[in-house]
Amino acid sequence: MFSNKVTSIGQSPIREFAPIQEKRIEEGTKVYQLNIGQPDIVTPKEFFSAVNNFDESILAYTNSKGIPELLEAFEDYYKEIGTDLTKEDMIVTNGGSEAISFAFLTLCNEGDEIIVFEPYYTNYNIFATQAGINMVSITTKPEENFRLPKKEDIEAKITDKTRAFCITNPSNPTGRVYTRDEIDLLCEIAKEHDLFIVVDEVYREFVYDGEFISFSSVKGMEDRVIIIDSISKRFSACGARIGLIASKNEEFMAHVLKLAQARLCAPYLDQVGAAAVLKNTSKDYINSVIKEYKNRRDTIYNRLKKIKGVQVKKPAGAFYMIVKLPVENAHEFSKWLLEKYDHKGETVMLCPASEFYATKELGIDEVRLAYVLKEEDLIKAVNILDKGLFAYQKALAEEKSVSINKKPGVVLNKEQYAI
Amino acid sequence: MFSNKVTSIGQSPIREFAPIQEKRIEEGTKVYQLNIGQPDIVTPKEFFSAVNNFDESILAYTNSKGIPELLEAFEDYYKEIGTDLTKEDMIVTNGGSEAISFAFLTLCNEGDEIIVFEPYYTNYNIFATQAGINMVSITTKPEENFRLPKKEDIEAKITDKTRAFCITNPSNPTGRVYTRDEIDLLCEIAKEHDLFIVVDEVYREFVYDGEFISFSSVKGMEDRVIIIDSISKRFSACGARIGLIASKNEEFMAHVLKLAQARLCAPYLDQVGAAAVLKNTSKDYINSVIKEYKNRRDTIYNRLKKIKGVQVKKPAGAFYMIVKLPVENAHEFSKWLLEKYDHKGETVMLCPASEFYATKELGIDEVRLAYVLKEEDLIKAVNILDKGLFAYQKALAEEKSVSINKKPGVVLNKEQYAI
Repeated sequence: MFSNKVTSIGQSPIREFAPIQEKRIEEGTKVYQLNIGQPDIVTPKEFFSAVNNFDESILAYTNSKGIPELLEAFEDYYKEIGTDLTKEDMIVTNGGSEAISFAFLTLCNEGDEIIVFEPYYTNYNIFATQAGINMVSITTKPEENFRLPKKEDIEAKITDKTRAFCITNPSNPTGRVYTRDEIDLLCEIAKEHDLFIVVDEVYREFVYDGEFISFSSVKGMEDRVIIIDSISKRFSACGARIGLIASKNEEFMAHVLKLAQARLCAPYLDQVGAAAVLKNTSKDYINSVIKEYKNRRDTIYNRLKKIKGVQVKKPAGAFYMIVKLPVENAHEFSKWLLEKYDHKGETVMLCPASEFYATKELGIDEVRLAYVLKEEDLIKAVNILDKGLFAYQKALAEEKSVSINKKPGVVLNKEQYAI
Repeated sequence: MFSNKVTSIGQSPIREFAPIQEKRIEEGTKVYQLNIGQPDIVTPKEFFSAVNNFDESILAYTNSKGIPELLEAFEDYYKEIGTDLTKEDMIVTNGGSEAISFAFLTLCNEGDEIIVFEPYYTNYNIFATQAGINMVSITTKPEENFRLPKKEDIEAKITDKTRAFCITNPSNPTGRVYTRDEIDLLCEIAKEHDLFIVVDEVYREFVYDGEFISFSSVKGMEDRVIIIDSISKRFSACGARIGLIASKNEEFMAHVLKLAQARLCAPYLDQVGAAAVLKNTSKDYINSVIKEYKNRRDTIYNRLKKIKGVQVKKPAGAFYMIVKLPVENAHEFSKWLLEKYDHKGETVMLCPASEFYATKELGIDEVRLAYVLKEEDLIKAVNILDKGLFAYQKALAEEKSVSINKKPGVVLNKEQYAI
C-alpha cells in the first residue's frame, strides 16, 4: 500500500526502545542515556543572546544558501582550520542530515552505489533509500581498531555503479580518527576510479589522540571532496538544525543549490545563533569541551576494561565507542536492561551496535556507547551496566531452569530470551 | 557527471532573476517584489517572546514528531476549525516543503504518478523529481476561474501508476478556493480509484469570498487525506521553517515517522515560537491580516483591470493572482522590467507564470502576482507595471525598426526581444 522505500525501512532500536524508556521514566526510574549523541554540555550563551537580539519584525525567508553572516562565519572558521573553502563553496542546510541527502541526490542515479565502512552512522541508510541508492559496505574490525582495509579489499567493492565513498571522520560509531595514510589511500582510490568522497566531519574538533586531517585539505582532491558539517556537536546545539554542505566543485554546488531553493531556506533565527557561536565563542569553550570529553573517554574506558567479559578499544575521537558485551545478543540485553532492570531505581539505555553494520551477523554482541554524560553519571551508568550484566546472566539461567523443569526438552528461542 | 534528477531540474526565473535584482538594488533602484510569497506583515510578538523566554541551557534535539506543546497547540487549532486531527495524527516538519517530500516518498514508488492541477506550485516538481515520481497535470483555465475540470476529464488522466492527487487549497498561484462540489468530486474519484489526496492548506485562513472547506473535514475520507500545513503564511513566520504533516491514516504516519526520525527533528526554538503563536496570538491579529489581504486584493485587482490589454479574474483566496499581460512573452517582459526599466528610480519584480504550468505552451503571456506589499506600495507597483508595459511596447517597436533598417528582412528572435 505504501512505497517500497518506506516499507523497507525497518524498526530501529531507537523506535523500539523510545516508548519503553518513556514508561520507565513515568514509573520513576532514572534512565542514564548512553544511547544517543545528545551532549549534556551547555550551548554557548552567544547563541541565545544573538537570537534574543534579533531585531527584525518579520521572520522572513532567508537566502536559500544561508544568511551572509553565517556563510562568512563558516568561511573564517574554515580558514582557521587551514582549508580554503569560501562562502561561495557553501550552502547552509537543515542539519548535517539534509547535507547528506543533498549530496546523495546530486551524485547518484537510482541504483547507483555508495561505499561505506561498517560500522557506520545508521541514518545514512535512510537517506540512501530515499534516493534509491544502494549502500555497499566494507567491514572494519574492532581488533584492528576499525582502520580502513587494504587497497585491494576496497577496490574489490567498486563496480560501474559506484559513485562515491561516504565516511565519517572522526567516526560515529567507532570513534576512529583516520590517519594520513588512510586518507591518502582513499583519495588515491577515488582519483583512480573517478569517485567522490562525501565526508562527514561534524566531530572534527573532538580528537584526543593523534591528529585530525580534513579531507578538504588534501591537494588535488578539491573537485571530488564533499564536506558535511554541522554546529550540532561542536557547540552542543543539536536542536538548532544548522548544517553545511561545502565543496570546491562548482557544478556540484550549483545542483545542490537547486535542491536548497526548492525547500526555501534553513531556519533564520538558528542561522543568526549559529553565526554568533562560530564568530564569538571563545577558544576556551571548545578547549574545555574537548578536555571534558577526553576525561570522560578515559573514565568510561578504564571502568569498562574492568568488567569481566567486556572488550573495548580506546577510541581516538568523537564521543562514541563500540563495546563487546559478554552476552549472546546485545539488543535483547539492552531491551531487558531498559525494561526490566534497575539498581536502586536507576538503569541505563544502550544502543545495540548491530544496526550500525550492514552485514547481518556482525555487531550482535556489541553496543555503541555515547559518553555524553558528566563523569559522575558515566561512572554510575557503567556500574549499573556491570551489575545489570551479572543480573541478566542470573535471570537467564533461572529462566532456563524454570523452563526446562516445566517443559523438558524445549529449547528457548531468541524471542523468549528477550522477555 | 551528476544525477539525472538534479540535472533535469531547470533554471527557474527565481534563480535567473535573483542576481539581476541584486544588481539593480546595488545600483540604487527600488524593486517592488510582487514575485514571491514573502508577506510584509509583522510576525506576532508572541513568537519572539516565547523564543526569548526559552530557559533551557542546552539546545537539544527534540522528539522527531515535534515538541508536545506544539503538537497540542496544533490539535487545539484543528479542533477550532472543526476537524478532529489529534496530536497522534501529526508530525512537525521543516516547513511545508518537508511535509510534501515526506508524503510523496511514502506514497510513491519510482515511476508512480501524482496528479496535479496546473497552474500549480512549482516546487512540487522538485520534490517529485527527488522521489522519482512523475507529475501528471490537468489544466485549469483562467476563463473558468481555474475551477476543477469535469469528472471524466480528471479520470482520463488516471493510470495504474497513479497514487494521489496533490492540490493546494486555497491555491497558489491562482487564488482559487475550491467549492464543496469540487471537493466532493475529487473525494469521490479518490475513493473510486483508491487514491490519496495530498492537500496543501497553508493558506487556509486567507479566504475573502465564499467558504473554505478543509479536505480533513470530509467524512469517510480520513484514511485517504494527507494534510500539509505550515505557520509560515498564517503568522508571517516563513523563516521559522515550521510545517506539519497530518493524517488519520495510522500506517501512513508510522512510515512518515521513520523519515522524520532519520533527520532527527525540526528546529527546537522555532517549535517553541510556533507553539506560542498558535496558542496565544489573538483572533484580532489573524482577522486584521485577513482584512488587510482582502483590501490589497481589491486594490490591485481594481487597478489592474484598468490597464489596457491586461486580463485578470478576482481570486477568492491566498494572496496570489494569475494576470494575463498584453505581451508576447511574460518572461522576457519581466526580465526587461527588472533589468532595464525604472520609473523615477523604481521598478517591479514579477514572476512569469509559465513555470507554474507543466504544459509548455501555457502561461507564456501570464505572470503570477503576490499581493504581499502594503496598499500604498501595491498601487505604486501597479503604476510602474502600467508605465513599464507602455515603455516595453515602445522599446520593442523602436528596436524592430532599428533592426529592420540595419538588416532588412531579418526577423528578431525571442532571445533578442529579451534585450
